[in-house]
Amino acid sequence: MSSRAQRVIDCCRTLAQFTEEPGRTTRTFLSPPMGEVHRQLGNWMRSFGMQVSVDAAGNLRGARTGAGRTGNAPRLIIGSHLDTVPNAGAFDGVLGVVIGIALAEIARHASIEVIGFSEEEGVRLGVPFIGSRALVGTLDAATLALAEPAIRQFGLNPADIPEARYAPETAAYLEFHIEQGPVLESLHLPLGVVDAIAGQSRAEITFEGQANHAGTTPMSMRRDALTAAAQWIGLVEQVAGAHDGLVATTGRMHVEPNAANVIPGRVTVSLDVRHGCDENRQGAVRQLIAAASNIAGKRKVKMHCEQRLDQPAVPMDAALRERLAAAVDSAGYPVHYMTSGAGHDAMIVAPHIPSAMLFLRSPGGISHSPEETVLVEDVEAAIAVGERFLCLIS
Amino acid sequence: MSSRAQRVIDCCRTLAQFTEEPGRTTRTFLSPPMGEVHRQLGNWMRSFGMQVSVDAAGNLRGARTGAGRTGNAPRLIIGSHLDTVPNAGAFDGVLGVVIGIALAEIARHASIEVIGFSEEEGVRLGVPFIGSRALVGTLDAATLALAEPAIRQFGLNPADIPEARYAPETAAYLEFHIEQGPVLESLHLPLGVVDAIAGQSRAEITFEGQANHAGTTPMSMRRDALTAAAQWIGLVEQVAGAHDGLVATTGRMHVEPNAANVIPGRVTVSLDVRHGCDENRQGAVRQLIAAASNIAGKRKVKMHCEQRLDQPAVPMDAALRERLAAAVDSAGYPVHYMTSGAGHDAMIVAPHIPSAMLFLRSPGGISHSPEETVLVEDVEAAIAVGERFLCLIS
Repeated sequence: MSSRAQRVIDCCRTLAQFTEEPGRTTRTFLSPPMGEVHRQLGNWMRSFGMQVSVDAAGNLRGARTGAGRTGNAPRLIIGSHLDTVPNAGAFDGVLGVVIGIALAEIARHASIEVIGFSEEEGVRLGVPFIGSRALVGTLDAATLALAEPAIRQFGLNPADIPEARYAPETAAYLEFHIEQGPVLESLHLPLGVVDAIAGQSRAEITFEGQANHAGTTPMSMRRDALTAAAQWIGLVEQVAGAHDGLVATTGRMHVEPNAANVIPGRVTVSLDVRHGCDENRQGAVRQLIAAASNIAGKRKVKMHCEQRLDQPAVPMDAALRERLAAAVDSAGYPVHYMTSGAGHDAMIVAPHIPSAMLFLRSPGGISHSPEETVLVEDVEAAIAVGERFLCLIS
Repeated sequence: MSSRAQRVIDCCRTLAQFTEEPGRTTRTFLSPPMGEVHRQLGNWMRSFGMQVSVDAAGNLRGARTGAGRTGNAPRLIIGSHLDTVPNAGAFDGVLGVVIGIALAEIARHASIEVIGFSEEEGVRLGVPFIGSRALVGTLDAATLALAEPAIRQFGLNPADIPEARYAPETAAYLEFHIEQGPVLESLHLPLGVVDAIAGQSRAEITFEGQANHAGTTPMSMRRDALTAAAQWIGLVEQVAGAHDGLVATTGRMHVEPNAANVIPGRVTVSLDVRHGCDENRQGAVRQLIAAASNIAGKRKVKMHCEQRLDQPAVPMDAALRERLAAAVDSAGYPVHYMTSGAGHDAMIVAPHIPSAMLFLRSPGGISHSPEETVLVEDVEAAIAVGERFLCLIS
């Protein structure tokens, strides 16, 4: 008989076959394969004595009062998402739900609710976190209107969304998730205790020079928007590299007229800056925008900046984080704190319910890809930590 | 009565109204408005006693033996092109033809052929210089096959292309053309004597790193193809700026996946390098490709280079260039030699017929735009130089 960790992995791989696209895993908000996943996981939850339902936002919910406890005993939600990006791996999101169910099987004493969120990736409607926002009651009217047809088509009633809110006896939220980055692997660590979800800034920087003939315009007479942008991109990399915990990315670029024999007249570059501390992030953004203006000025190029996002960091609950760290330690693993550079359901839940989050190592740092995987010993470590965490908070 | 230079300018502005697109000037190879231009210029040529024809490549040709000379006396071709880019100005190409006709009016003693080439820009068929290549007999079979339908539709016979070749008594070729760059204006000079058409290298450089999550991948663990490309683009600018007469342009760029929250995994950049001396140009290209490889190596990014063009410089005829310079001097203008960074019909003709070329200042350096213009005093200077040049070579 295979280990409990191997059974979790096998279950995730089986669920990856419920997809909208044959041959690859794509499972968006309330798509037909999402219904299949609900049936599979619901059956499994019921076999451990859980009450199973699907709320009006399409979240799969399995609740069980701990053995010998009353119905309003403090309850722990263990959750993550069941939707995927297109051509996804088998573990992003769903692993956290399956580990939750495995823990419900083991920890009969604990009052647990396992939630498989219907929507985190933002693929189907272009809006992320629909599931967890319904749980905490922050789903806005516009998103709800957008989601209504899908909710009805799935056989649910949008008018019932308010009932999707978490129960008053909910005391804490815990999310297991793959890291989706290379840090734990590089440190040879199975697990990371998340201290915060990084804040994020987005901006679009436009350099506007003068398009001109590549053959007839001497170097000294050019106002090249691309060489200005290139100098700034180098500086972004340098500033972020010198600043602990900061990541800054210039990922999207638009060059006009984008012809081999024309000096670029206009270049737009995206800027994405993240850090666990909002002051550090905002300071870096100010520095980078000032640098762009400075580079442009020296080159007689115009610079324009449009700031598009200034999303604060979301800290995990300090007491809960320490209990999670204690559980990691008592299970015999090194404690490593880390900031999540990506958004997760815990980011939505944390302002409403004390929350903690545990990362599992991502081999190769690979995610959002069919090559995404997880090590059986790391899943075993996560389950062992979960068991101890449940003892510590119950 | 307006000056002869003003009449030349007025004529160019009138011809700009013969267009395929109402409201802007677009006149491609053998389009209906090209036929209108032939009729207008042909009538004007005939009024100065020229024999007018349209050869099988669609070149308008007006020939006249000088007063008191035999039919096989050495003949000067004055030519440039009558086709335009889309949304063109009124002077690129056609000015050289109209100045040629103005000179035919004045210099009755000279044996002159004025040619308005049918195709230089490569817009209609994607292949440039069809007119001048027919004149020197270097039109390849593939281009001819491509051009045949347009030639027939215009009422010409592709089988007659060999007869488009220049007459054996042709002794020299002279082209007047706007500079299409900012150099003469910056030097406050009306005219430039072209010493060579710059050679040109084209290449595509690809940097291949690793696409990754912008939030979860620390700066030190990235293999960012765009920051590698940006570093190289800065170096291209620096190397060209330090090298007299060299121009190097990175004009086209393709970034993958080109999303704000993904570290670029693959970037392709075009390289265009030009210089009047082939060794200098090829040396610079080698240096820049080696630098790309070096940058990529240090960043653990792969680099691939595809060289797409290695077109040698075309020198103008030394003796003819000196006569043109002498004509500039005797007309009372400063002699300024310059390399043409752009290709012109003279580049095609020069290997077959001793050729010279005179640039007229481009106000604002602007060309390939409705704002393209020319100063009346510069056109007067060009006509005065043309008159003296005809005396010197006749």
